[in-house]
Amino acid sequence: MTTPIRVAIAGYGNLGRGAQAAITHSPDMQLVGVFSRRDPASVTLIDDSVPVYAIDDIEQYKDDIDVLILCGGSRSDLPEQGPALASLFNIVDSFDTHAKIPEYFEALDAPATKAGKVAMLSVGWDPGLFSINRLYGEAILPVGETYSFWGKGLSQGHSDAVRRVDGVKAGVQYTLPSESAIARVRSGEQPTLSTREKHVRECYVVLEDGADADTVRSAIVTMPDYFADYDTTVHFIDEQTLASEHNKMPHGGFVIRSGVSGIDNKQNEQNDQVLEFSLKLGSNPEFTASVLVAYARAAHKMNLAGETGAKTVFDVAPGLLSPKTPAQLRKELL
Amino acid sequence: MTTPIRVAIAGYGNLGRGAQAAITHSPDMQLVGVFSRRDPASVTLIDDSVPVYAIDDIEQYKDDIDVLILCGGSRSDLPEQGPALASLFNIVDSFDTHAKIPEYFEALDAPATKAGKVAMLSVGWDPGLFSINRLYGEAILPVGETYSFWGKGLSQGHSDAVRRVDGVKAGVQYTLPSESAIARVRSGEQPTLSTREKHVRECYVVLEDGADADTVRSAIVTMPDYFADYDTTVHFIDEQTLASEHNKMPHGGFVIRSGVSGIDNKQNEQNDQVLEFSLKLGSNPEFTASVLVAYARAAHKMNLAGETGAKTVFDVAPGLLSPKTPAQLRKELL
Repeated sequence: MTTPIRVAIAGYGNLGRGAQAAITHSPDMQLVGVFSRRDPASVTLIDDSVPVYAIDDIEQYKDDIDVLILCGGSRSDLPEQGPALASLFNIVDSFDTHAKIPEYFEALDAPATKAGKVAMLSVGWDPGLFSINRLYGEAILPVGETYSFWGKGLSQGHSDAVRRVDGVKAGVQYTLPSESAIARVRSGEQPTLSTREKHVRECYVVLEDGADADTVRSAIVTMPDYFADYDTTVHFIDEQTLASEHNKMPHGGFVIRSGVSGIDNKQNEQNDQVLEFSLKLGSNPEFTASVLVAYARAAHKMNLAGETGAKTVFDVAPGLLSPKTPAQLRKELL
Repeated sequence: MTTPIRVAIAGYGNLGRGAQAAITHSPDMQLVGVFSRRDPASVTLIDDSVPVYAIDDIEQYKDDIDVLILCGGSRSDLPEQGPALASLFNIVDSFDTHAKIPEYFEALDAPATKAGKVAMLSVGWDPGLFSINRLYGEAILPVGETYSFWGKGLSQGHSDAVRRVDGVKAGVQYTLPSESAIARVRSGEQPTLSTREKHVRECYVVLEDGADADTVRSAIVTMPDYFADYDTTVHFIDEQTLASEHNKMPHGGFVIRSGVSGIDNKQNEQNDQVLEFSLKLGSNPEFTASVLVAYARAAHKMNLAGETGAKTVFDVAPGLLSPKTPAQLRKELL
């Protein structure tokens, strides 16, 4: 790796900051700049050794960037920026609205193909590493069931719902996988489980002065849609504890494939086989950004090898993610 | 998938039987035959609806087989059969002598390239799925440590050692990951652990008539090289229990990457991130065979797309393992 891969970041929120950090840990990459919709002078980087540019000027840097990491949101940023930027750069993004992936894929495929670039979408952990493990599981054990569990993770929507309850001054909500549901899946039982049977909810709440804890707890755990159908626990804490112990963005989860191999006849019986992949993330955006950076490397290599158009993690051979040579990988990791 | 992939098996031990079973679970594949060094009339298949041929006649079937799964052993079968068959067929094998993989790769690459075929080596779970997870872990979290644990698995060499002890009539030995070592790794501590600190050993022994249990236990747990440096437990059982409860070939293990993301400076701190992949296998050979069959599908597709030469799991995009189309995979699994 003599010439570093020239990478740029578009969008500088939590994900963009995570991407910058991940690039500093990648000696084969060089961050050439951060592009923002804000006034560049107002953007404070976690490491200010790289320039900040206005996103409107990005076309000027067309020949200076090997791959651009889009760090905007899936709701409004990416559907607009993705197709436009795919006609200028190799791009990688973390589009995560599962139901709209096929449509977004098509929206990127045409401009990227026309421009001779790679547009890699929906990279991260779900969609992303979890998707890959769902695929490995069903391809290797066609007879079986796949289970995805999420958490322990901070849920923005449910935290907002808690904070709207009368008497709640502040609070957060975590979604956790149900330990008993995971145990049933791991046993090879292949139970039928709804999303709500697979998860429990935990709230950490700061009460307003004079509010009654039992009334607040009851209002939360009986709230329709959000909590009523889940096993929900409410913990009351003070503001200092909320600030010091609940200021992170943890997340994670499990993908478990429970299947059987062999055939079942007079001489033979089938055997249970269980594959499990899990993540325990101290910071959800930093981890997603780390995955984006590894796939940025792959997007660049694939484009150098002549590939163009929209790609997903399903199209990326694992070896392309590593800065090591194929011979090194075979010797050291196989 | 209108035309099924025509698959054949070379070698019919536990792995070959597992491959036949896995092919019956793959509607896009058709098993065209089993090739054996034994007299075909003496080979009993788990499902006798396919023919058995002499391996010496295999060249005659050159145009009838899309991909050949080699189910021989790594010590003597594959180094001899692999290079010869790679000049005739797309092949997939489970060569698992880690230290010799680079050399074996070269031995397959030349004939496969010359013949315009794909030769996919070292497919299974270790090498194989574990290797892929080691790679994903270090590519995504370059700052961290990777840990591989094996077990609970039956160890042939250690079972033989137990059976050689005076007073032992029969017995088996399992290697297990050390629960305390796994807990330390999962915590993000990144401890330095030797293979022996990571594993414990469990023996199930049937005593000869009149043998003294304490003497036998002591002879086993103090045996140099095999047991002396491990935490070893010896259970005494009767022959019926050995036959009914220890007649399987379970295996499995864990690959854990413990790393950090983010940068550590005045405004920021780093966050722990843990990826974990694990397998709990009811039958080691049946699972390895299931992996081989999924990669046989990929080898065929890659060859159809014009790829040739030696390949490993690092070269195979996940989507190629599935019988589903790329559009279906994006819709259903991403």
